[in-house]
Amino acid sequence: MAATMRDVAALAGVSLKTVSRVVNLEPHIRPEVIRRVRAAIAELGWVPNGSARALRTGRTNVVAVAVPHLQRPYHALLAEALVVESNRRGMQAAVEPTHRDPARVEAVLSSVGRSFDGALVMGRLPDGLDPELLRTRPVVLVQAEPVDGVDAVSVDLVEAASLLARHLVVMGRRRPALIGWDRFTSGEAVIAAALSPDSPDTLPRVSGVTTRADGAAAAESLLASSPDVDAVVCASDEIATGVLHVLAERGIEVPRAVAVTGFDGIDEGLFATPSLTTIDPGPAALARHALDLLLDGLSSTPPQAGRHVLAPVSLVRRETTLGQGVA
Amino acid sequence: MAATMRDVAALAGVSLKTVSRVVNLEPHIRPEVIRRVRAAIAELGWVPNGSARALRTGRTNVVAVAVPHLQRPYHALLAEALVVESNRRGMQAAVEPTHRDPARVEAVLSSVGRSFDGALVMGRLPDGLDPELLRTRPVVLVQAEPVDGVDAVSVDLVEAASLLARHLVVMGRRRPALIGWDRFTSGEAVIAAALSPDSPDTLPRVSGVTTRADGAAAAESLLASSPDVDAVVCASDEIATGVLHVLAERGIEVPRAVAVTGFDGIDEGLFATPSLTTIDPGPAALARHALDLLLDGLSSTPPQAGRHVLAPVSLVRRETTLGQGVA
Repeated sequence: MAATMRDVAALAGVSLKTVSRVVNLEPHIRPEVIRRVRAAIAELGWVPNGSARALRTGRTNVVAVAVPHLQRPYHALLAEALVVESNRRGMQAAVEPTHRDPARVEAVLSSVGRSFDGALVMGRLPDGLDPELLRTRPVVLVQAEPVDGVDAVSVDLVEAASLLARHLVVMGRRRPALIGWDRFTSGEAVIAAALSPDSPDTLPRVSGVTTRADGAAAAESLLASSPDVDAVVCASDEIATGVLHVLAERGIEVPRAVAVTGFDGIDEGLFATPSLTTIDPGPAALARHALDLLLDGLSSTPPQAGRHVLAPVSLVRRETTLGQGVA
Repeated sequence: MAATMRDVAALAGVSLKTVSRVVNLEPHIRPEVIRRVRAAIAELGWVPNGSARALRTGRTNVVAVAVPHLQRPYHALLAEALVVESNRRGMQAAVEPTHRDPARVEAVLSSVGRSFDGALVMGRLPDGLDPELLRTRPVVLVQAEPVDGVDAVSVDLVEAASLLARHLVVMGRRRPALIGWDRFTSGEAVIAAALSPDSPDTLPRVSGVTTRADGAAAAESLLASSPDVDAVVCASDEIATGVLHVLAERGIEVPRAVAVTGFDGIDEGLFATPSLTTIDPGPAALARHALDLLLDGLSSTPPQAGRHVLAPVSLVRRETTLGQGVA
């Protein structure tokens, strides 16, 4: 027969309450008592049952952070920011990589109310996801396309595009090309309109680009089809890293011949050679807004929903546009 | 009064069993039925209670992946591999960033048996963690220092050091320096013995180095104190990236003047300029071994424990040792 908490208390010579306090990592318990209780737990093979506890309180105090791919550095950076902010608000966070599989996102959402009190869903939503699932629970979308009736926090893409366009004009660039802007909802339209208001459709562009290897392949194809390009405007720092690799291989000087810009402000761009001009979306501020919305959604009855916070971005000017030794 | 599952079934005109199947995302339910049940759930504001379910089955089918820092690219890479392998074995995985805080690791471990069926604990353990907590539960350490009585999977550091040392000798390097090898248990001793068996203690070295910025600072200090170094042997690709940045700034040619090696095999090293020679620890194989041990620990009574799997590594030769245009 399985051991009970009562057995543990008896073997350790303490009260049930003390066993509970040790198991829940409460403060101010004498180390000697903790050791005795843990030894009893180990000897009896007792497994503390938190499901019973969650059943009583109706809250788990855990928030799910659904992230498409931890191997995308910006996803990892933003996930980390969401976890840190959850902790700051007294919640635990569990990061759930979904690989943009609708079944995985649905599994996370359907665990809200059991394993999780709420969910923060990061990045573009997978095709085929039932939007009803997003509406029935405390959910906040973070840097996803907005969904009617669901709270969301996004970066100000129009501002980002405008900052990039003005900087490139100041640096004398007249023939920009785009890589990977379909990453963002309406991304290609927004950046093309900022860079070339009169003829946005004529800008050379490569879509469907995510990894460094994709970025390298996109750069090869741009150099072949549009050899007079003088700026490559990338939708992520990862893509830009692949582009820089190809330009270095070909002996094309950056930024003298071709300027390069990224997006995301990951650490890697600062240490790239040359260092990468980029847009910093401010992950810490995004996380604060997201937790504000989520906690408000958890506590208000009926819950507010469908609010949309647009967070400001900043341009980080570095060597891939300014020139080496300047930044 | 809060809505019940019975209310949902009545409103949707289906059986309790059907509501349960929809909530648990079981296959082969007609889309029309799914929509009706979800509409009823939304209308009544019913929250499915998984805690009750976990209480009945005693299993959550979720494994915790405790990872120090998602912003360290290799931690994110290995976490992703552990999640993918957990999914392949039919388990959900929750990634828990711990920031090497003993209280956070203890919180994850104390949730085993409630929120989680078991835990995979990655990387060096935080100081002050009570090893008893590791012994009482289904836990597997992944690339951590071994703890008596706890299952563990590690990379073969001696083999890695030997591969690096032989390659550097073949490439004509005689005056190597070490950066960051205290990352691994006995790391400095193992790599120094491989590189300089006769006088391991005389190798220049910098310890306590983690980020790209740390790596850059360490390179500055090495160049000042040991200007004749002809190879910088880094304990991570991140550190190596910081070193490459400083060498490029100073106009020091890699590898003609100084060769550089990393460790981890992250994607960033392949796209660095020049591309980075590194050790690939084989995260997919590490994850397979870790899940083998964990699932075995979950199913066997009394559980096996204290087994130690040493996984082989491989050397990835690239431009920072071979020269540009060669790799």
